[in-house]
Amino acid sequence: MSSKTKLGLFGFGCVGQGLYNVLHQTEGIKAEILKICIKNPNKKRSLPNEYFTLDKNDILFNEDINVVVEMIDDPEAAFEIVKIALQNGKAVVTANKKMIADHFVELYELQQQYNVPLLYEASACASIPIIRNLEEYYDNDLLGAVEGIFNGSTNYILTKIFKDNIDFDTALKQAQEIGFAETDPTLDVEAYDPKYKLCIILAHTFGLFVKPEEVFNYGIQNLSTFDIQYANEKGYKIKLVAFCRKVDNKIVAGVLPRFVKPENKLYTIENEYNGILVESAFTEYQFFAGKGAGSNPTGSAVLSDISALTYNYKYEYKKHNRGAKVELTNNFTVDLYVRYSTSNPIDTSLFSNIKESYSNADSAYIVGTINFNDLRNSDLLKRKDVNIIVSADNKFDVVANTAKTAAEQVEVI
Amino acid sequence: MSSKTKLGLFGFGCVGQGLYNVLHQTEGIKAEILKICIKNPNKKRSLPNEYFTLDKNDILFNEDINVVVEMIDDPEAAFEIVKIALQNGKAVVTANKKMIADHFVELYELQQQYNVPLLYEASACASIPIIRNLEEYYDNDLLGAVEGIFNGSTNYILTKIFKDNIDFDTALKQAQEIGFAETDPTLDVEAYDPKYKLCIILAHTFGLFVKPEEVFNYGIQNLSTFDIQYANEKGYKIKLVAFCRKVDNKIVAGVLPRFVKPENKLYTIENEYNGILVESAFTEYQFFAGKGAGSNPTGSAVLSDISALTYNYKYEYKKHNRGAKVELTNNFTVDLYVRYSTSNPIDTSLFSNIKESYSNADSAYIVGTINFNDLRNSDLLKRKDVNIIVSADNKFDVVANTAKTAAEQVEVI
Repeated sequence: MSSKTKLGLFGFGCVGQGLYNVLHQTEGIKAEILKICIKNPNKKRSLPNEYFTLDKNDILFNEDINVVVEMIDDPEAAFEIVKIALQNGKAVVTANKKMIADHFVELYELQQQYNVPLLYEASACASIPIIRNLEEYYDNDLLGAVEGIFNGSTNYILTKIFKDNIDFDTALKQAQEIGFAETDPTLDVEAYDPKYKLCIILAHTFGLFVKPEEVFNYGIQNLSTFDIQYANEKGYKIKLVAFCRKVDNKIVAGVLPRFVKPENKLYTIENEYNGILVESAFTEYQFFAGKGAGSNPTGSAVLSDISALTYNYKYEYKKHNRGAKVELTNNFTVDLYVRYSTSNPIDTSLFSNIKESYSNADSAYIVGTINFNDLRNSDLLKRKDVNIIVSADNKFDVVANTAKTAAEQVEVI
Repeated sequence: MSSKTKLGLFGFGCVGQGLYNVLHQTEGIKAEILKICIKNPNKKRSLPNEYFTLDKNDILFNEDINVVVEMIDDPEAAFEIVKIALQNGKAVVTANKKMIADHFVELYELQQQYNVPLLYEASACASIPIIRNLEEYYDNDLLGAVEGIFNGSTNYILTKIFKDNIDFDTALKQAQEIGFAETDPTLDVEAYDPKYKLCIILAHTFGLFVKPEEVFNYGIQNLSTFDIQYANEKGYKIKLVAFCRKVDNKIVAGVLPRFVKPENKLYTIENEYNGILVESAFTEYQFFAGKGAGSNPTGSAVLSDISALTYNYKYEYKKHNRGAKVELTNNFTVDLYVRYSTSNPIDTSLFSNIKESYSNADSAYIVGTINFNDLRNSDLLKRKDVNIIVSADNKFDVVANTAKTAAEQVEVI
């Protein structure tokens, strides 16, 4: 990287504006914005006109620009921009988690082929420097697990539910009103957003490149007052937890709601904050927390990436390049709370072990052990009257290869 | 660094033994122990005799060894070892916080002069990668404050006191029995240990190199059941908090007990864990937590440093080299709770503002605002019947230069 970083920005919303402000406040980072590509020429802008362009090629083929900062929403358009930028030898900073998760292998290969860095600290848990820490500090093969609250919108909703004793729909509406949830909240509420982040984390934790489709996600969309009351009675909170964990040298991963006890550090993470537990041999755990969403936390992570580029920093994908000796499995067991309408019983043969069952006139639940493969194939996932939450005391157990899960047996038949 | 790291170890206690085990369990780190210098030849060792030497020169002048790992207790002996190692072009990894804090400038200059790295992540909060994060991720001038629980022994004692409702002496004895406090607990209990760590943090947060003598420390040695009851009644815990903070472009720093409310993340840090709040512009705070003491967390930090050396990592002291534009000041105000024996009143003129006062037949306290300079010069610090705790709502205010503190006025007179 040359002594002075010359930036081309795609998008100039809150994050871009914040970035501009910060760059003009700090003397430490030698970076200058040359050009900003925008979509809407009619919006009033805070900078002189000569900064702006509607033509992406004014940045992508501008020889004075050596770093492209991509901050647009559309993942596919973003990927095209990032691809051409890397092909033109420009370093790229992005926060677009879906774009990265969808195109991980291509983005990895583009970096190798053109020998230019792509940094994306802001893509996972915004202000928490988790990727950098996984890549640099935990650069050995001693990591056992990374799990946490990766989505600020749903955590805000869950916090409201438990603090103000309100139901899911009311909490969602409140979150939308103050801008913590989108008008279409599906990506957050159904746990796609934390899944994209988990895919990125998986690459830097275990060297595993997986497609989002390979990772299971189940959100909080079916959370009922019955579930909330169950949690309250036990002294739990419900959190939407993304996890990846090495069990018997296989990796288990997914995103599911979980009952969390007060002694779990994730219990203390409220509102739009994110929290991440990193388990490694010899240290039990480390815990990271910080704002997981919003223009300023995202802007500060983007800024840190820009700064890192001035020191020639790049992800080395050490764990992947070392030759990943681990693979993702769905053949593991998990202890779940499954709640359903009493009038519409569930197939109890799904459970290899039933620990509790309960029913009243309206609602029923079973707490028991289910194989993750069976859960992924179960029609319970489609039922609106069903909710699935990981038990507070759950331990993941990988199933030895010889044993077939119910789902596999069905396939065989 | 050559493709293979050849280690010379000084000391082979728990940390050294753990390090040996880890190096033999992980394939990721290409490092090999060649020689171990020990003091006591008669102790039974788990490795063959040829590993060991009593002569430090067998390591310091061994051309095959390129990394020295210093793990001995004595700070002055450690400094001699580190100095000679650096002078001989060997990279050094150490966890010796007192040695580093006492000799910061010399160690900085040795690194520049001989162009060899000295890494010491394990010296501050063991398993929490705080130095690396401050140096690399927060490498701009936007940091506002770093504060936290830097000492595991005292946090263990304070946890016992508040959980089991016991007094300070009983808790200290219990901590000593299970090895969480030394036979001579002065360094921990009187807050010298967290002060050494704070000096290291100050260098990597604000680029400030300060001697330990310049930083104020007051421990938990005078904690009484009265103080504990006061905290309990308010719903507070007492934590020993090290802090450094930019206020009006000056830096305030010190270690003092503090009343902590439940909404403060430090409230949740229990037992031997450490917790660190990092405040930077645009992100509110990030929070880091993990085990702050013990051979395994320390060993894992040492291991991470060894691994970083294989990638030619070194601290660049970016904030210092940029030219520190900030200086340490003690001319600031702090809100304190000062408890004393009713029979031995204190000089209330110390307080510029008294917010609360209370007394019963035995104990009395005042909550009010004191200039830090006056506190440092006060004979209250020597009184065994006095305890000083920072208020839960304290804000540090730097005093404009024209105003003289009581201490300065005394000097003038």
